[in-house]
Amino acid sequence: MKVGIIQSAVSKVKEENLRVARGLIREAAQKGADIAVLGEMFCCPYDNASFVKNAEPADGPSVSMLREAAAENGIFLVGGSIPLSEDGKIFNASFVFGRGGELLAVHRKVHLFDIDVKGGQSFKESDTFTAGSAVTEFETEFGKMGLCICFDFRFPELARLMALDGVRCIFVPAAFNMTTGPAHWETMFRQRAVDNQLFTVGAAPARSYDGGYVSYANSIVVSPWGDVVWRAGEEPVLEVVELDLSRVDAVRQQLPLLSARRTDLYELRKV
Amino acid sequence: MKVGIIQSAVSKVKEENLRVARGLIREAAQKGADIAVLGEMFCCPYDNASFVKNAEPADGPSVSMLREAAAENGIFLVGGSIPLSEDGKIFNASFVFGRGGELLAVHRKVHLFDIDVKGGQSFKESDTFTAGSAVTEFETEFGKMGLCICFDFRFPELARLMALDGVRCIFVPAAFNMTTGPAHWETMFRQRAVDNQLFTVGAAPARSYDGGYVSYANSIVVSPWGDVVWRAGEEPVLEVVELDLSRVDAVRQQLPLLSARRTDLYELRKV
Repeated sequence: MKVGIIQSAVSKVKEENLRVARGLIREAAQKGADIAVLGEMFCCPYDNASFVKNAEPADGPSVSMLREAAAENGIFLVGGSIPLSEDGKIFNASFVFGRGGELLAVHRKVHLFDIDVKGGQSFKESDTFTAGSAVTEFETEFGKMGLCICFDFRFPELARLMALDGVRCIFVPAAFNMTTGPAHWETMFRQRAVDNQLFTVGAAPARSYDGGYVSYANSIVVSPWGDVVWRAGEEPVLEVVELDLSRVDAVRQQLPLLSARRTDLYELRKV
Repeated sequence: MKVGIIQSAVSKVKEENLRVARGLIREAAQKGADIAVLGEMFCCPYDNASFVKNAEPADGPSVSMLREAAAENGIFLVGGSIPLSEDGKIFNASFVFGRGGELLAVHRKVHLFDIDVKGGQSFKESDTFTAGSAVTEFETEFGKMGLCICFDFRFPELARLMALDGVRCIFVPAAFNMTTGPAHWETMFRQRAVDNQLFTVGAAPARSYDGGYVSYANSIVVSPWGDVVWRAGEEPVLEVVELDLSRVDAVRQQLPLLSARRTDLYELRKV
């Protein structure tokens, strides 16, 4: 499975962001990607005022572009995330389309990002967003894939539930910052991969010091053994990375973690 | 809370190992440690034949030494682990004693270490050991502590259950090897600490190339923010490390992970 990770620069002009993303999706397909993934809020700056200003319904310009780009390039597309306007609420939402442009899944971020680090980053997504309420997976010709957004991935329960459901790769559009990124980003992607014996893919916006919230960038791909297969820097980049999904089965056989869980002692389940 | 981490050399002679450990426990106390922790199987080489040969009951020489060392030095003691003979079975067991030598907890490893990495490490603990069946915690004047042994820590459910119970530091006598150590050791201790916003302490035997199983060593202390506070090399070492437990509350307030869990979507519970 070839994954095109798109770490795009994000400006204040939505039309420009969509145009850039669309071009990079095409380029990913031309480079052989089976599935492309964009960063969290690839369409607008990461701040609450911008989320409100750029919120759009499911038939708005961002989602329409994603649907068309998937179909015209014949690839799977994890459409990063956008501010989705729905029933008078706004969600941080990720749309997934199939090779024919068919809608495969919509994930609404379930853990909103509210932090206040002394001397570091503060942000309160819950000022603007409503939280979703579902674990999100989708089927592909390569097997089942998991999807969550940024802060969602902080919670090991979510990745574990996906692994137990048979997920072989978790896609995470995300935008860590200059406080949490250097401290936690790579370790999180590595340990979720090792614990659950699957691939993890993080796609972030490129770094920009223009706005209030600075993306750590460093988009990343980690193998089921915990090796960093590929990692971006801070600059805009498109990279097509091949994931050898047979590694999932091989690692699960050699180091039997999922099968050795003591389900007679603890239980994790969806409510 | 000052923790004395004892990464001791392990020989084939049990009496020698006990004598060395006892001396290091004393030295830890003299250096101001409130609690000392030994490595997994500090009393005998890590192999199945050795486990059988050195198995002893709860009133045997190893446990007696640990009880006496705790009492005579007036410190808490997490007694690494020993092969415990009980009801015709053998457990990989860790005894914890209080400052007066009173027994605070016994943890019997619940996830047995059975791996077979192609071109790397193979081992099958279940050839010898019976698995325990409890999550283990103990109370101290510094708050509640968690305890598990090596492979147990591979399973995020266990650490999470401890955190939800109010545990502020998890002690892990362990012995990773030269395959899994470089690949997984530090990342695991860091991510468990970050996910659960508590301290993690790993204590391993020093490295020796004499036996079949080579301990990675690298005993480690990680803060609730994921910083490596201290990490050993491969040589025998005793280090007294001060843990600022107020960091647990500070990190939990700044980055509210435990409180932001979506318990309406997933449930983790002891069975």
